[in-house]
Amino acid sequence: MKKIILIGANGTIGKSIAAELSKRHEIIGVGTHSGEYQADISDLSQVRALFEKTGKVDAVVVAAGAVHFAPLAEFSPEKYYLGIHSKLMGQVNVTLVAQEMLNDGGSITLTSGILTQEPIVGGSGASLANAGVEGFVRGAAIELKRGLRINVVSPNVLEESMDVYGDFFRGFEPVPARRVALAYSRSVEGAQTGQIYQVW
Amino acid sequence: MKKIILIGANGTIGKSIAAELSKRHEIIGVGTHSGEYQADISDLSQVRALFEKTGKVDAVVVAAGAVHFAPLAEFSPEKYYLGIHSKLMGQVNVTLVAQEMLNDGGSITLTSGILTQEPIVGGSGASLANAGVEGFVRGAAIELKRGLRINVVSPNVLEESMDVYGDFFRGFEPVPARRVALAYSRSVEGAQTGQIYQVW
Repeated sequence: MKKIILIGANGTIGKSIAAELSKRHEIIGVGTHSGEYQADISDLSQVRALFEKTGKVDAVVVAAGAVHFAPLAEFSPEKYYLGIHSKLMGQVNVTLVAQEMLNDGGSITLTSGILTQEPIVGGSGASLANAGVEGFVRGAAIELKRGLRINVVSPNVLEESMDVYGDFFRGFEPVPARRVALAYSRSVEGAQTGQIYQVW
Repeated sequence: MKKIILIGANGTIGKSIAAELSKRHEIIGVGTHSGEYQADISDLSQVRALFEKTGKVDAVVVAAGAVHFAPLAEFSPEKYYLGIHSKLMGQVNVTLVAQEMLNDGGSITLTSGILTQEPIVGGSGASLANAGVEGFVRGAAIELKRGLRINVVSPNVLEESMDVYGDFFRGFEPVPARRVALAYSRSVEGAQTGQIYQVW
């Protein structure tokens, strides 16, 4: 049984990850305003405080991070930085702290998304942030010590989100959150590193 | 004959791009401290001022942008943000202004690098920033209006840089800057968009 920090535990993906992993592991749920502990991962000091409160764990999973959606013609640097601070550097911050605080052989699992490779109108901020996360994971994987591993899950649009996001993702094949959750299980309970698990 | 803004004109790649494109086109060389005009592209207002000074052009090429290199264990958010502000958002800033200021049918050509896909020790900041640029280009390509195009060139380590960077790139096959310059020519003088030209 592993002790796992799950950041974004209250989201649609987070709840499915918790349902899958809690069958076999201890889950510590974290949210910005919900969960057992609260942390805003865009702030490194809050990530550090979180890991000090939980004590040593075997894995951290991040299913959190916001990005701004807008047409390219209406985008501004500030709007790109929303996704950079949150989804991109938030997950980098978790990795920087986790490399020190995880037990030997522990794992880090981050989240990108299909827009890395398959763009949609209004999604340039998401494509940028998601791609940055994947590049970072490839870079970090070869440098982690003590048998630590890092992977990233890239989900398609969720079946559960089609009511809200459907118009942006016409023609994409939605996936149920419980299928996406399996990719996180594969990362946490498997042995690979530097992988991008595309759930498409 | 096209009128082309070349940002980073004084760098190793920039000089080769100028040598190739100036055979057939008018090149306006830009640097942070050198060139016909000066601009720090990490600052949107300086990019806007640059395009106002040059007047309408047919293409902009960016071969500029710094990233920080350090072992993952010694990285900090601030060091990742050096590359994010410069290489990633600097090139995004150029695109945001260029989409308004280029002549119809004009092109934007950015620069990433092999570390997007092939990591080296100490290079997680470069892998992050380069991948972010490529994701952004995929996203922006489908939204540009007026027949505008955007591509990105991803060079391997340069033959000309092996004296300085060789120890970081052992086993990589260096490419001469004049070969890299051809990829920029292909982007500017061809008709594709959303492409990543890997010069490996």
